[in-house]
Amino acid sequence: MTTPPRFAEITDTLARQSIELPSWAFGNSGTRFKVFGTPGTPRTPHEKIADAAKVHELTGLAPTVALHIPWDDVDDFAALKAHAEKLGVQLGTINSNTFQDEDYKFGSLTHSDPAVRRKAIDHHFRCLDIMHATGSTDLKIWLADGTNYPGQDSLRARQDRLAESLAEIYDRLDEHQRLVLEYKFFEPAFYHTDVPDWGTSYAQVSALGDRAFTCLDTGHHAPGTNIEFIVMQLLRLGKLGSFDFNSRFYADDDLIVGAADPFQLFRILHEVATGGGLDEGSPVRFMLDQCHNVEEKIPGQIRSVLNVQEMTARALLVDRAALVKAQSEHDVLGANDVLMDAFHTDVRPALAEWRASRGLPAEPMRAYADSGHQKYLAEQRVGGVQAGWGA
Amino acid sequence: MTTPPRFAEITDTLARQSIELPSWAFGNSGTRFKVFGTPGTPRTPHEKIADAAKVHELTGLAPTVALHIPWDDVDDFAALKAHAEKLGVQLGTINSNTFQDEDYKFGSLTHSDPAVRRKAIDHHFRCLDIMHATGSTDLKIWLADGTNYPGQDSLRARQDRLAESLAEIYDRLDEHQRLVLEYKFFEPAFYHTDVPDWGTSYAQVSALGDRAFTCLDTGHHAPGTNIEFIVMQLLRLGKLGSFDFNSRFYADDDLIVGAADPFQLFRILHEVATGGGLDEGSPVRFMLDQCHNVEEKIPGQIRSVLNVQEMTARALLVDRAALVKAQSEHDVLGANDVLMDAFHTDVRPALAEWRASRGLPAEPMRAYADSGHQKYLAEQRVGGVQAGWGA
Amino acid sequence: MTTPPRFAEITDTLARQSIELPSWAFGNSGTRFKVFGTPGTPRTPHEKIADAAKVHELTGLAPTVALHIPWDDVDDFAALKAHAEKLGVQLGTINSNTFQDEDYKFGSLTHSDPAVRRKAIDHHFRCLDIMHATGSTDLKIWLADGTNYPGQDSLRARQDRLAESLAEIYDRLDEHQRLVLEYKFFEPAFYHTDVPDWGTSYAQVSALGDRAFTCLDTGHHAPGTNIEFIVMQLLRLGKLGSFDFNSRFYADDDLIVGAADPFQLFRILHEVATGGGLDEGSPVRFMLDQCHNVEEKIPGQIRSVLNVQEMTARALLVDRAALVKAQSEHDVLGANDVLMDAFHTDVRPALAEWRASRGLPAEPMRAYADSGHQKYLAEQRVGGVQAGWGA
Amino acid sequence: MTTPPRFAEITDTLARQSIELPSWAFGNSGTRFKVFGTPGTPRTPHEKIADAAKVHELTGLAPTVALHIPWDDVDDFAALKAHAEKLGVQLGTINSNTFQDEDYKFGSLTHSDPAVRRKAIDHHFRCLDIMHATGSTDLKIWLADGTNYPGQDSLRARQDRLAESLAEIYDRLDEHQRLVLEYKFFEPAFYHTDVPDWGTSYAQVSALGDRAFTCLDTGHHAPGTNIEFIVMQLLRLGKLGSFDFNSRFYADDDLIVGAADPFQLFRILHEVATGGGLDEGSPVRFMLDQCHNVEEKIPGQIRSVLNVQEMTARALLVDRAALVKAQSEHDVLGANDVLMDAFHTDVRPALAEWRASRGLPAEPMRAYADSGHQKYLAEQRVGGVQAGWGA
Repeated sequence: MTTPPRFAEITDTLARQSIELPSWAFGNSGTRFKVFGTPGTPRTPHEKIADAAKVHELTGLAPTVALHIPWDDVDDFAALKAHAEKLGVQLGTINSNTFQDEDYKFGSLTHSDPAVRRKAIDHHFRCLDIMHATGSTDLKIWLADGTNYPGQDSLRARQDRLAESLAEIYDRLDEHQRLVLEYKFFEPAFYHTDVPDWGTSYAQVSALGDRAFTCLDTGHHAPGTNIEFIVMQLLRLGKLGSFDFNSRFYADDDLIVGAADPFQLFRILHEVATGGGLDEGSPVRFMLDQCHNVEEKIPGQIRSVLNVQEMTARALLVDRAALVKAQSEHDVLGANDVLMDAFHTDVRPALAEWRASRGLPAEPMRAYADSGHQKYLAEQRVGGVQAGWGA
Repeated sequence: MTTPPRFAEITDTLARQSIELPSWAFGNSGTRFKVFGTPGTPRTPHEKIADAAKVHELTGLAPTVALHIPWDDVDDFAALKAHAEKLGVQLGTINSNTFQDEDYKFGSLTHSDPAVRRKAIDHHFRCLDIMHATGSTDLKIWLADGTNYPGQDSLRARQDRLAESLAEIYDRLDEHQRLVLEYKFFEPAFYHTDVPDWGTSYAQVSALGDRAFTCLDTGHHAPGTNIEFIVMQLLRLGKLGSFDFNSRFYADDDLIVGAADPFQLFRILHEVATGGGLDEGSPVRFMLDQCHNVEEKIPGQIRSVLNVQEMTARALLVDRAALVKAQSEHDVLGANDVLMDAFHTDVRPALAEWRASRGLPAEPMRAYADSGHQKYLAEQRVGGVQAGWGA
Repeated sequence: MTTPPRFAEITDTLARQSIELPSWAFGNSGTRFKVFGTPGTPRTPHEKIADAAKVHELTGLAPTVALHIPWDDVDDFAALKAHAEKLGVQLGTINSNTFQDEDYKFGSLTHSDPAVRRKAIDHHFRCLDIMHATGSTDLKIWLADGTNYPGQDSLRARQDRLAESLAEIYDRLDEHQRLVLEYKFFEPAFYHTDVPDWGTSYAQVSALGDRAFTCLDTGHHAPGTNIEFIVMQLLRLGKLGSFDFNSRFYADDDLIVGAADPFQLFRILHEVATGGGLDEGSPVRFMLDQCHNVEEKIPGQIRSVLNVQEMTARALLVDRAALVKAQSEHDVLGANDVLMDAFHTDVRPALAEWRASRGLPAEPMRAYADSGHQKYLAEQRVGGVQAGWGA
Repeated sequence: MTTPPRFAEITDTLARQSIELPSWAFGNSGTRFKVFGTPGTPRTPHEKIADAAKVHELTGLAPTVALHIPWDDVDDFAALKAHAEKLGVQLGTINSNTFQDEDYKFGSLTHSDPAVRRKAIDHHFRCLDIMHATGSTDLKIWLADGTNYPGQDSLRARQDRLAESLAEIYDRLDEHQRLVLEYKFFEPAFYHTDVPDWGTSYAQVSALGDRAFTCLDTGHHAPGTNIEFIVMQLLRLGKLGSFDFNSRFYADDDLIVGAADPFQLFRILHEVATGGGLDEGSPVRFMLDQCHNVEEKIPGQIRSVLNVQEMTARALLVDRAALVKAQSEHDVLGANDVLMDAFHTDVRPALAEWRASRGLPAEPMRAYADSGHQKYLAEQRVGGVQAGWGA
């Protein structure tokens, strides 16, 4: 076993790392062509939280669970909170949903009909109420709003209405709550999206105030976009609120983070690290937003948080003094080598040992496979309706 | 009213034009986020065919309807055929579907399990049987087969199994039947697709024989791909079997053909025209493959076939002698001007007059809007389950 | 001849339209593989201005010429100004150049070495001095700054240095001068570019002040980017300073504006028109930035300004009342039809007649071809060194 | 130091690996904006070969040097061959060049003028003659042929002329010679390229015969293209002749192979390995085709061949039995883990030790830096004209 030099210096930061899991990652998901089910899939928010807690139990990396309203709506959120805490996790970000009601066919916060905007705003008010019950601090807004055909609606009028709607929601925040506005290049709208890029999210949240931030979903960019540059820029501008981690080869594929381009994940985390995003008190929060269409969900989530952890370790191992020196000398190959040296360092053995030292399984994937838990769930969760994006 | 010079010379070709409608365009469609319904949506294959016949009645452009099996499965295809003919249309291409059964989660014709391949091949045999009943000549195969993660399966083994499966299906064709293999860049698989590009479709159908062709769906390419080049190449190689027309800004958006990039549609049709694809006896067939997620379906299809007709007219109006002359003189701007002159010609008035002269509505979109048919359908089609991709 | 209804209503706006020509469009250009020359290419700034004046003479659309320093550096800018005015045009935007000196290999305004930054800032001071001599009001900054390899330099430190350098330049502006900051997705840097997107330009110019704006080059975006959305957003935010028009199929191809995707140009101009960008007193200025690698340059520029004019006419002909009505009724197809109706309107005959009524050639392309001017230039401009990007 | 299990099993294959260096990588290169020079850059083919020999001396990986005609044209190729051999390397692939003569402005092998085609064909005949003198076996053809504007030329006529020209060249090959046809998505042509994709190259070389193959340049694809799929397909079809290795973020950036997406390089080499491309007698040859615009050239090439070697080692370490087992069980995460385990294995220490055991520097990059060779070259190579793409 080889422990990289300086590994001991980074364990404090690693110990602080927390990656929020999305409840919906444990339900079924798919494409417009088909959603495949698997035995053991949760039927209720409680079961989703139990699955998330299992991931945290085995990795120590995922102490909070994000909820999606109405997918995770329950009568008693206080009870849901207690359920989560009993299992060792907390309820985290509340994600609003204004894309699955017939009223939202032509928009929600941007809709030309004031009654539909009212309904969408009120939905966010309800989310804020839920946050009071769950102790969540972040309200995350991702909008499906957009159009499919040139001319279908006024880009400008929609943007202005968006600003007004967001302002009304922002005004309802209390001092401990934050509004986080996600952007997305395309889908489900195919001509224009009302918040398509970081610039639009930045312009909108800057107009709101100090508690409004941008959420960067790593799958929501045009082909070829240098995402770590955006990370740097939003950190510089003080507006990077959170990440939705996943990976993609083509569009918003929502694959396991680090699966499609591990080097990109490394570069992103290097930028986060050097920009202060891993410091104590940083406003940057880490979440997953993924779909496990063909793979098992619980180990899919375990794999995901481990990927983030492993790449964070590599990013922290970058020899920054050597990097700055090579950069200042315009030693292009040397500076690149410093970065690549950290990327190619195999941190897995050291991480395994460190996990064991903290009472966690050295190999969480193997621990889960050996536990028989998947089989147990498949036997227990018989009947009912498996959770998915519809409910 | 202005009639472009030489319009009279192109009407024979225009009169011959036929664009097959997909039955599923009349059902509901959407994204993984939401499928919105609309009043009047068909509940049965019979109603879908009735809607397609309405498009043909108003445009004279769409004499055949493609079916999707099992979405359009019925007990008595001879009766369905008679129903269609009574309404003035014929049944056309049979589209197989091997992506909505749980067995196909990891592939169909490429699956590693011989039993699943058997099932998928047998499904195609059943499609061939249906073709005998319906009088259809084309079996179109689009495969959702692929993987989401590097390593998930052997790219090579899948390609070899695909070749074997296709050969077995091809061998069952009778002398009047054709096999048409569609390719697609990505979706629903996100790491690799088993038939991702025209080269793969070409290599596969070339290995099969003379009655195997490639289907080019205009939305199934990588960003920036020069589609008219592929049209030229497949025509040159004698393997362009059919088009699935639609348009896109990003991925496989399945928007109305000509809506996103009308100039691209023009260039494609120019290449079809100069390559002999509009000649009598040409093996090239035209179909739509679209989703009307937010717009009305019947007028959406009318708009689509009109877009193809209008661009075909423009493409036919290209002054080829002038074009060849400018090309031979390396007069770049002159040659481009010849093409653009045809593209910018407003053929709509002449087409309207010509339609009227043939007993068709001069303005099919307006005729449909004025007919009250949409309202009639909404009132008639109450209850039942609206058709969609699931059934 | 058909004159579109309402054409008379748009001629005031058309008469006001002005599209600045880039002096460098008349010199040779090419790719890293080869720069081809053509007979008649200018050797000096004076000859480039003469060519630009010819374009204006025939079209009435191009009353100003942009200069590139040092490509157009001369000893006596007052004399150059007089030369231009004698030919009927004015000197326009001054474009700085910090990418062709060996000192700028690793950056200019972002360089880690204060001496190089000083040199680059001083170059901009000199450009401001030139502007006083030429009467130009816009200083346009496009930076080649960036890196080729991850780790090569600190993204953040460069961004901070950029802000400082820009502030120093901005402070030197007088009250009639503006700073316009262009962004570009990639090239000549291949890993990161210091001003890669509109968001970065917007954040930088917002920090400078009221006389700093963004320049939108239509070829400088990621594949699939909805450019008219950015136009709308920058107009909304009051920061759209100017356009660099050209077109592209792949990267920054710098083809003739409207050649690759005429419908996109139409949508952009529709957004400009509805956002007030064509109003009197609008801060938005129109320029070309193109390369005529294989086509003749003067007619290439004539074709370009005509393309902009024709698309502007179509955009102005959009029936906005009908559009708003269809939008408000969520009549997707109807709203799209309103837009497409204007796009498919053949404005060329009406424009030709209108040109003639103003004492201009009805058909500027034909007028140029018939004039023998190209042959004249080829015979006159013998010897010397043809202008290109190097000088 | 950790040696991966099974490392001993792969050293025979590693010892066989040979990566051809391009002579032009040692000359200056850049973009259309600027070509920066560096002290020590070769002035002659002899000096380029000396630099290539240095790379081989330090790595043992690069026993051959590719030449570019006319950039590397000399009076006496036998003498050049002797020069190379004295330095320990052989002359390899001959690359033709039909893009830098004024005659080729509108095409070469595809040109409409038979005289230009004749000239281009004759150039290839001369390349074949040179191959007899140098002992090279591969004639590599990359064509800049294409058009910038729709309509500029007939796509079809050009394709047919290409086929005729290639046939004439192919017929001149002797039994030991191969023709390798490269494809490229775009650049320097911006509307269409005559050999834009693997399908076109495949169709053309298939029509030629058994000694015609496709060359896959890893930077010549549309965004998002799954390159390893093409590798698999060409290997399956028996037509993968060679690789031009480099990497890219956007277009044909020609960066150091493995620099932009090391995981993609790994996947490509995994597909090569499993497809027999690393077997003895395989027709697949490995070359670099890169530009060192801002970094030092000799260490840039050292870094490149090491990147290929390191990724080859990782690809060879994939536990194929475990992979096949997981694949056959549809264990998506398990199969992916097998692949990722090899990718994340740090092979560098084992490779260093193995290099040392063979009499090579354990750390070639460091050995070069410590040697003072770069300084020596800068002092020696004073005066003359530094080599570049022009000569």
